[in-house]
Amino acid sequence: MKTPVTVLGLGAMGTALARAYLAAGHPTTVWNRTPGRSPELDAVRAATAAEAIAASPLVIVCLLVDDTVRSTLDGIDLSGKTVVNLTNSTPDQARATAERVSAAGAQYVDGGIMAVPAMIGGPAAFIFYSGVPEAFEKHRADLSVPARPEYVGADPGLAALYDIALLSAMYGMFGGAQHALALVGTENVPAGPFTERFLFPWLTAMLGSLPPIAEDLDNGPGDTAGSNLAMQAASFDNLTETSIAQGVDPMLVAPMGELLRRAVAAGHGDGDLAALIGVLRTPAE
Amino acid sequence: MKTPVTVLGLGAMGTALARAYLAAGHPTTVWNRTPGRSPELDAVRAATAAEAIAASPLVIVCLLVDDTVRSTLDGIDLSGKTVVNLTNSTPDQARATAERVSAAGAQYVDGGIMAVPAMIGGPAAFIFYSGVPEAFEKHRADLSVPARPEYVGADPGLAALYDIALLSAMYGMFGGAQHALALVGTENVPAGPFTERFLFPWLTAMLGSLPPIAEDLDNGPGDTAGSNLAMQAASFDNLTETSIAQGVDPMLVAPMGELLRRAVAAGHGDGDLAALIGVLRTPAE
Ligand SMILES: NC(=O)c1ccc[n+]([C@@H]2O[C@H](COP(=O)([O-])OP(=O)(O)OC[C@H]3O[C@@H](n4cnc5c(N)ncnc54)[C@H](OP(=O)(O)O)[C@@H]3O)[C@@H](O)[C@H]2O)c1
Ligand SMILES: NC(=O)c1ccc[n+]([C@@H]2O[C@H](COP(=O)([O-])OP(=O)(O)OC[C@H]3O[C@@H](n4cnc5c(N)ncnc54)[C@H](OP(=O)(O)O)[C@@H]3O)[C@@H](O)[C@H]2O)c1
Repeated sequence: MKTPVTVLGLGAMGTALARAYLAAGHPTTVWNRTPGRSPELDAVRAATAAEAIAASPLVIVCLLVDDTVRSTLDGIDLSGKTVVNLTNSTPDQARATAERVSAAGAQYVDGGIMAVPAMIGGPAAFIFYSGVPEAFEKHRADLSVPARPEYVGADPGLAALYDIALLSAMYGMFGGAQHALALVGTENVPAGPFTERFLFPWLTAMLGSLPPIAEDLDNGPGDTAGSNLAMQAASFDNLTETSIAQGVDPMLVAPMGELLRRAVAAGHGDGDLAALIGVLRTPAE
Repeated sequence: MKTPVTVLGLGAMGTALARAYLAAGHPTTVWNRTPGRSPELDAVRAATAAEAIAASPLVIVCLLVDDTVRSTLDGIDLSGKTVVNLTNSTPDQARATAERVSAAGAQYVDGGIMAVPAMIGGPAAFIFYSGVPEAFEKHRADLSVPARPEYVGADPGLAALYDIALLSAMYGMFGGAQHALALVGTENVPAGPFTERFLFPWLTAMLGSLPPIAEDLDNGPGDTAGSNLAMQAASFDNLTETSIAQGVDPMLVAPMGELLRRAVAAGHGDGDLAALIGVLRTPAE
């Protein structure tokens, strides 16, 4: 028999996880604060979180935020369980949850889901895991059901660090794209064709410069690929000025101008984007 | 004979442009403020900008910023020339340059280069153009030499708007990626493998959500693809808190948290990222 699995939380993501376990033939018990969510799921429904946890050796938690996890698990006996928490957390929150969950008798694995719900079960989805290595190994096959597992270390905070890093990158890209669409929208340029013909191919091409930037970081600066920071800083005000002139809030783009100025002031005018990473790690004066 | 071309400016980009024209067999005259730049170019070297301009009907300007263009062209007779300015500008700067250049007797086309120098002559590079339509059409073949031309309208400011929009998107993506690499760098995770295994595939997958977001914008909101803004706002502080805890300046990511809060406060908690574009176009209280 496949490992019985409990899923706590039937939001968009918890529902996608439960659906994946059901499809893979795992006996699946679910609980959600508000009853009646996702009625299409053919899972066992528990009336309380404690009852749901009692039903399976593997408990997957996917709630809104860390406070929700704390209040939901508070006071429940977790002896002998493996608790896998996929709720978005900071590294410090994950470490604190690890302590509380271990004190309640369970082995703890933290996870960060790199997917939207529609990607669960598909080829591009992956989940960072960190925490008790034996618990992860014992359930590696079970944890492979919703997405490719990527175990990044025993420190339970590491998965959250990797997760938050990739989310930062995603929000940067989305924010830039939203600003771009807001700008051309002021001249009534339709977003769909602009995205298909220009925005998407451009970002795809620019994504190709990330591997060399990363290589510079590991191996020390190479050449600037012809786009030095002094030149970039010199024309960056054009971005904020254009935004203001078009009535688009420059809030998402302005900080990069500040970072470029700091980098040039710190002597990196001849450097490339890799140099900005060092500046981000230097406390501002 | 191919159209004689003059290139003003032999920085990284001007050099790449001149090289492309030489390779395509155009008689090419170059000028640069500091003599002796890019000695490998087998071009005719003019001693002054005026002399360089006199040499060709098509004059391509690629200098640092708008002020540089103004001071370089100031007082030079441009009668009968087509001046194509590829210097990064705001739409308003491009319109002002168009007026000055027309007053000096030339037809003006503004352009925004969507490429780094190494991409010039390659398949992914393109250049937005706007301005006098006849001038663009007359030189369409010539302007196709360095990169695919994309003519976006007679208003000379439009190419700059498209250019600035795509640059905003690029800086957003790079900024997010830099923040991500700074974060994992605090735990000594090597940037190269992290980028190859996680950052690059993740951003590639997330780039796939842009076309549906753009479609929402044109056609009115569809569904949220399972990632509503209230959920995103609820966990966004995890990004800034993690940055601060790891000693990484949250300057590049914090504004997205503010935008998400504004969007939820404006009633878009059930919406998706498309709703943020409307908020960017709404003046803050
Ligand atoms: N959706 C995504 O794209 C995505 C991607 C990666 C990671 N995640 C993470 O996955 C987690 C769940 O996201 P989601 O998209 O499923 O969010 P969601 O659709 O908004 O669902 C939130 C879930 O949390 C529950 N909840 C909220 N407050 C609670 C409380 N005080 N006590 C008990 N339960 C409570 C909700 O129960 P009720 O039904 O009773 O409100 C619901 O089950 C979040 O940490 C999110 O960051 C989501
Ligand atoms: N490189 C890229 O990735 C890229 C991509 C797209 C667009 N662009 C745009 O292309 C333009 C040129 O960029 P680049 O990369 O070639 O910059 P760059 O390598 O820094 O070269 C700057 C050029 O401007 C000239 N210049 C600066 N101040 C001047 C002044 N006061 N008078 C006359 N000439 C002056 C420089 O001449 P000296 O040699 O005498 O200093 C040099 O030719 C910029 O507007 C940039 O935004 C660049």
